[in-house]
Amino acid sequence: MDKTAAHDLAPVTVAGLGPMGAALAAAFVDRGHPTTVWNRSAAKARPLVARGARHAQTLPEAAGASPLLVICVTDYAAAKSIIEGAGDALAGRTVVNLSSSTPEEAREAVGLAAGFGAAYLDGTIMVPVHVIGGPEAVFFYSGSRPVYDAQLETLRALGGDVRFLGDDPGLAVLYNTALLGLMWATANGYLHAAALVGTAGATAADFAPVGLDWLLPSVVIPILHGATKEIDEGVYPGDAGTVRMNLNAADHLLETSRAQGISTHVPRFLKDMLERTVEAGYGDGSYMGMIEVLRRPAEG
Amino acid sequence: MDKTAAHDLAPVTVAGLGPMGAALAAAFVDRGHPTTVWNRSAAKARPLVARGARHAQTLPEAAGASPLLVICVTDYAAAKSIIEGAGDALAGRTVVNLSSSTPEEAREAVGLAAGFGAAYLDGTIMVPVHVIGGPEAVFFYSGSRPVYDAQLETLRALGGDVRFLGDDPGLAVLYNTALLGLMWATANGYLHAAALVGTAGATAADFAPVGLDWLLPSVVIPILHGATKEIDEGVYPGDAGTVRMNLNAADHLLETSRAQGISTHVPRFLKDMLERTVEAGYGDGSYMGMIEVLRRPAEG
Repeated sequence: MDKTAAHDLAPVTVAGLGPMGAALAAAFVDRGHPTTVWNRSAAKARPLVARGARHAQTLPEAAGASPLLVICVTDYAAAKSIIEGAGDALAGRTVVNLSSSTPEEAREAVGLAAGFGAAYLDGTIMVPVHVIGGPEAVFFYSGSRPVYDAQLETLRALGGDVRFLGDDPGLAVLYNTALLGLMWATANGYLHAAALVGTAGATAADFAPVGLDWLLPSVVIPILHGATKEIDEGVYPGDAGTVRMNLNAADHLLETSRAQGISTHVPRFLKDMLERTVEAGYGDGSYMGMIEVLRRPAEG
Repeated sequence: MDKTAAHDLAPVTVAGLGPMGAALAAAFVDRGHPTTVWNRSAAKARPLVARGARHAQTLPEAAGASPLLVICVTDYAAAKSIIEGAGDALAGRTVVNLSSSTPEEAREAVGLAAGFGAAYLDGTIMVPVHVIGGPEAVFFYSGSRPVYDAQLETLRALGGDVRFLGDDPGLAVLYNTALLGLMWATANGYLHAAALVGTAGATAADFAPVGLDWLLPSVVIPILHGATKEIDEGVYPGDAGTVRMNLNAADHLLETSRAQGISTHVPRFLKDMLERTVEAGYGDGSYMGMIEVLRRPAEG
């Protein structure tokens, strides 16, 4: 930290001092930003005041202390009550909301802030508390690009990997939600695979070098990268393998799981999705044609 | 290729000259192994003979030409008929079977070959035809370790990444099957995620750098690696997040998918598996406790 530069850094206010909000405030303080903090129960401000932050007693005072108000609370209702509590003190300032929300709520918040004369940027924190402020900390933002550009230098205090995803304010939370699904789906596939090889005595320690160090990075990620054009153009050539061929192989996975005496939940789901893709008319194209089924609002 | 060393290399026979078998035979020829080839319809041997291979007219002749017989046909029934067709000519030799099979069939093949006095090793080819013989070609083997060790030098002619998975002859095909499931599960999760961010105008080209270049290698793979001990010891501490917490977030994924007007198949499956994990008594432990559900023979 360069103490001599501290006077040049923009003041910032952090509202919401749970573990994550406190880590954000600490990162601003440590980087040398004049930092004001506010929390519904004031006691949580004490360690941050000891670290160098200033404690605001009221929301208007907190919002008025800095051109930027960063909100980090548990949900949109709580974020909304902070914006409303700050009220007209927000005029001419910017709100960056890093609280959990839905895409709809993120879009609604733009108008809520605008009603008090404030600019609004929605963001999501993609990493655990302990890496906040460090180079591995990842933040997604979406909404007004000019607002993002104006706050970027200040927001960089929170971590090294900062990404602007697009003009729709709902994009940051939508990416966050979508990525959770990708993580879970991969984890379920991995756990089923580990259970399957486990039936022949292979441990996770045996399987990880193959499944995690080889298959995912060397096969799956390149295949999915290679599908970018297919997905974006909606054309799924089947010359390197078709949905029908994969359906046969999925049946083999199902029968092997049954024969080895483990759960068939994962293979049944995989087979079911392939069958739906065939039924939708994409059986002779590549596996990626499945996205046409996933893009539709059908219930399953 | 070092032509001067060719005379020292072990002779090998390849039976089954579909696209994959022909690529295997070509790799042996190109590396300088005296190579004999056999195929049910003899015409497929011609290009390999032009490349330097010798064509055997009968299976006993093919098997008798080399200490190692590599079989690459479509299924176990075809591999079995080759072993039986070669018969006593296999005495004192080794069969390496790279054909598709089930774990049970791989185990059965050991006895079948032994009945003709032959050693047996089961293997699977984990890469497409065009990389056979190159450094990225990956082969899994399982069964008798001494048989593997004795043939390893010859088998290295087929590609750079050769792995022995364990003493159970069914392991190679079991890994292959399990990895397909992991690949599909990850692909389904990716396609659902791409469909979800697509509702806000993000393309696969936008999403791939986040989902494929960041989330999978920087978050998911490290998390799954970190779960190795939990999985192998069957203890799932919930201090960094529980199944119940993930179930709430999965509900959010489901509602967001519905609200954005896309398919709910993937989130319903993810939520269903988390619910089963809670019902099985693992709700307060880590996500990885789900493997206890997957290890059981319950139908889903």
